[in-house]
Amino acid sequence: MAIRALVWGENVHERTNEVVAKNYPNGMHERIAEALREDANISASTATLEQAEHGLTVEKLKDTDVLLWWGHAAHNDVSDEIVERVAERVWEGMGLIALHSAHFSKIFKRLMGTPCALKWREAGELERLWVINPRHPIAAGLPEFFELEYEEMYGEQFSVPEPLETVFISWFQGGEVFRSGLTYRRGAGNVFYFRPGHETYPTFHDATVGQVLRNAVNWAYNPQPILADPTNAPNVPVEEAIEKIVERGPRLHADGEEGFR
Amino acid sequence: MAIRALVWGENVHERTNEVVAKNYPNGMHERIAEALREDANISASTATLEQAEHGLTVEKLKDTDVLLWWGHAAHNDVSDEIVERVAERVWEGMGLIALHSAHFSKIFKRLMGTPCALKWREAGELERLWVINPRHPIAAGLPEFFELEYEEMYGEQFSVPEPLETVFISWFQGGEVFRSGLTYRRGAGNVFYFRPGHETYPTFHDATVGQVLRNAVNWAYNPQPILADPTNAPNVPVEEAIEKIVERGPRLHADGEEGFR
Amino acid sequence: MAIRALVWGENVHERTNEVVAKNYPNGMHERIAEALREDANISASTATLEQAEHGLTVEKLKDTDVLLWWGHAAHNDVSDEIVERVAERVWEGMGLIALHSAHFSKIFKRLMGTPCALKWREAGELERLWVINPRHPIAAGLPEFFELEYEEMYGEQFSVPEPLETVFISWFQGGEVFRSGLTYRRGAGNVFYFRPGHETYPTFHDATVGQVLRNAVNWAYNPQPILADPTNAPNVPVEEAIEKIVERGPRLHADGEEGFR
Amino acid sequence: MAIRALVWGENVHERTNEVVAKNYPNGMHERIAEALREDANISASTATLEQAEHGLTVEKLKDTDVLLWWGHAAHNDVSDEIVERVAERVWEGMGLIALHSAHFSKIFKRLMGTPCALKWREAGELERLWVINPRHPIAAGLPEFFELEYEEMYGEQFSVPEPLETVFISWFQGGEVFRSGLTYRRGAGNVFYFRPGHETYPTFHDATVGQVLRNAVNWAYNPQPILADPTNAPNVPVEEAIEKIVERGPRLHADGEEGFR
Repeated sequence: MAIRALVWGENVHERTNEVVAKNYPNGMHERIAEALREDANISASTATLEQAEHGLTVEKLKDTDVLLWWGHAAHNDVSDEIVERVAERVWEGMGLIALHSAHFSKIFKRLMGTPCALKWREAGELERLWVINPRHPIAAGLPEFFELEYEEMYGEQFSVPEPLETVFISWFQGGEVFRSGLTYRRGAGNVFYFRPGHETYPTFHDATVGQVLRNAVNWAYNPQPILADPTNAPNVPVEEAIEKIVERGPRLHADGEEGFR
Repeated sequence: MAIRALVWGENVHERTNEVVAKNYPNGMHERIAEALREDANISASTATLEQAEHGLTVEKLKDTDVLLWWGHAAHNDVSDEIVERVAERVWEGMGLIALHSAHFSKIFKRLMGTPCALKWREAGELERLWVINPRHPIAAGLPEFFELEYEEMYGEQFSVPEPLETVFISWFQGGEVFRSGLTYRRGAGNVFYFRPGHETYPTFHDATVGQVLRNAVNWAYNPQPILADPTNAPNVPVEEAIEKIVERGPRLHADGEEGFR
Repeated sequence: MAIRALVWGENVHERTNEVVAKNYPNGMHERIAEALREDANISASTATLEQAEHGLTVEKLKDTDVLLWWGHAAHNDVSDEIVERVAERVWEGMGLIALHSAHFSKIFKRLMGTPCALKWREAGELERLWVINPRHPIAAGLPEFFELEYEEMYGEQFSVPEPLETVFISWFQGGEVFRSGLTYRRGAGNVFYFRPGHETYPTFHDATVGQVLRNAVNWAYNPQPILADPTNAPNVPVEEAIEKIVERGPRLHADGEEGFR
Repeated sequence: MAIRALVWGENVHERTNEVVAKNYPNGMHERIAEALREDANISASTATLEQAEHGLTVEKLKDTDVLLWWGHAAHNDVSDEIVERVAERVWEGMGLIALHSAHFSKIFKRLMGTPCALKWREAGELERLWVINPRHPIAAGLPEFFELEYEEMYGEQFSVPEPLETVFISWFQGGEVFRSGLTYRRGAGNVFYFRPGHETYPTFHDATVGQVLRNAVNWAYNPQPILADPTNAPNVPVEEAIEKIVERGPRLHADGEEGFR
């Protein structure tokens, strides 16, 4: 069965800004889904902010293997309840790929536990992404580096936790550098941050960017059964201890009582 | 100048449970502070849940180098606003040491981005902590392993992010294991999770536990100036780019406009 | 095409020790290969110390995707030249799985850069392996923990570098713990250390151990083209710089000269 | 007591190349030691390749807390025996700071277990080092970035293991990037790789580079007692097991026998 990718798009600038609308007439989410569909092993659908529950119903998330997230102007319009729902699905094993300005999305900040701040400049400058982890699955088929002629600059320091692995580092014409591809695991879910993708530039029409997205979906996909109840902290009663032990000392909890949380 | 440690205690069971009150007649926070004061380089004060702003005013936090956190029954009574305030201080450079049941404290979960769940059993069983990272600053002066005769069991899987380094792993009499000492960096702040410390047992009277706490405070202390405004994402105007560049392509933001967040 | 696994066995104790011979009448390598073949996606062959070039010819390694290594009594009989050859293949992208006493094999120590020492006791005691990274590919299909009734004890401190991820931690009946499943990347090659497998016990006949080995081969396999010449440090001549630069200052090297190494 | 730093210099180009001799009339090692001495807490001495045992006698290493290593043309003239001696001292707890072309030194490659290869260009181009881990001890007192007007370019991919933390990333005028400050732990020893330092340029006269070196020595220093016999793998006899166990099953080793290695 194909990997079920869901591309979530904020879909705001596509409808309010002429340049973005021209770049992505069907919305950025549709363009990204289209790029994913070049891989026969990926089945891609989309969801947007303005839909009921932002298109991220319990049912839809249950049927999603990897979620891609693009947001920018409306991070704060995403409901906290949905963010928690998505976080819990990641912990269960759904992959998450945060794109560009999603560094400041509620869901990415929620999973990182850090500010996820950075420097930025919108000047259509050249970005060169160096593959510093060649033969990492996310870099499959890529050359030593690839370039995006027009991109927004993001500069370090990028306040995220130390990643499991760094895949890309960007060189910017204006003098900055940025860790542009970072991997994390959160619970049973694989998380990837990918830097490029400013809406006024044609980034998601770029062939290499498409390749990275397809690679990332394949990497983030966890084929194993979900990790059920990831927030549960079960009590192991003394009489069910693997090694026989005898209860000693005073107790706080009565038999069968739930733990505090 | 001494390191300014602040021990935060929930101070609930000490007043409602006879056993805990006998273990810690002045509260767990006071006992922990006492243990820290054995190091002349540490100046320790305390704060508790029932105080105004939980004793964690902006001013008090500003004067705190390392915060130790013990909570259990009342995690949910801690105000979200104070949690965000503490998180921001960690990102600025304040150290945080989460003790035992603080695995489920709002602040620890906030900084980890994961459920921080585990298995548990309250049977007063033997815990043996192995030092798996000898000569790590937090293990200074410790033997190969040390034992706590009476402890609550915490068992894996402990759903936290992969740490920077693992310092201790516990062996439990009933058959479980647990990563009992884990280090993280969040922004400019050093974070340490230390497993032992169930309130019905005399753990914080143990000499080796005291040594670990003092070591951890010294390790977590960041002597450098605070990292100001850690959540700020500054724009770098084109005319201030380090390398001269010429603006190209369409723009979303007007000159001087703030970024979205 | 199936993953081409090669199981390297020292094949010494199988021929000199009656117990080991009875456990593994065709050699440990053959038993391990047999366990791998339960996965239709793995094609497993074997090689042993006494063969010409230890069975690890340039050609054979070229045709190997994942190498499994079991050695114990004869680590020092492995030629340094072959060790370098294997290391270079790992850097090119071949996976390596080091089993049990291979913690002290030349190849594992070569790739770790640390002593890889540990404590040990040969008493046929119970080992319980906890899955601390559930839904990691190497833990696919495993329960929360699994047990080996008879195993040699390996105890911490295990002097290896901090891994990318820890997958298993063992509890031993005699009171020790051990990080029993550790992942690394070395160049383009994935490396996994798996603890169990003492030759006097029937470990490699255990069904769950077989599952771990098959999982590990699938995880370690890098389907991408080899990373050619991993030890090469190419000069980038000034006239081929991506961004036009003008040479300045004094030079050590003449045009076209090789770098020092 | 001050930290005892030892600066090891190859001292070849200083005597054979006019430019280098003019840059560093007393040798690079002496200039580096001089920079370290600006910190009253560091006591710096030097050693060079041509000395007996390369100046790295057992006694001298025993009296060294942190070793800094600069080599380039004569990596292969360093004796393998001395390299092993230094590696063992690192595992015991001595810090090691590898400078610039020491990426290809025997000792750095020995501790990394990877090729440590990279791209290079000798064109006196601008290097800008971004501090991506602000408030890390090695970045103490540094601005957001600092520049070296004339440096050799080193470009990714730098084939080293994923570090504990990345401290600096360099931007090069010619279009490349490089992870210029990387931390590792090997046994009880802290290891830091720092990129700048080409001998034909005045890098070690730069004030910020001096600050980094002093910071790095303070960071790498491990004040704890040495970790004795790091390569030893002790047997724990059954009768000395912490938890009482009864020996079962067949044994390979006779009582008191050494393990294989």
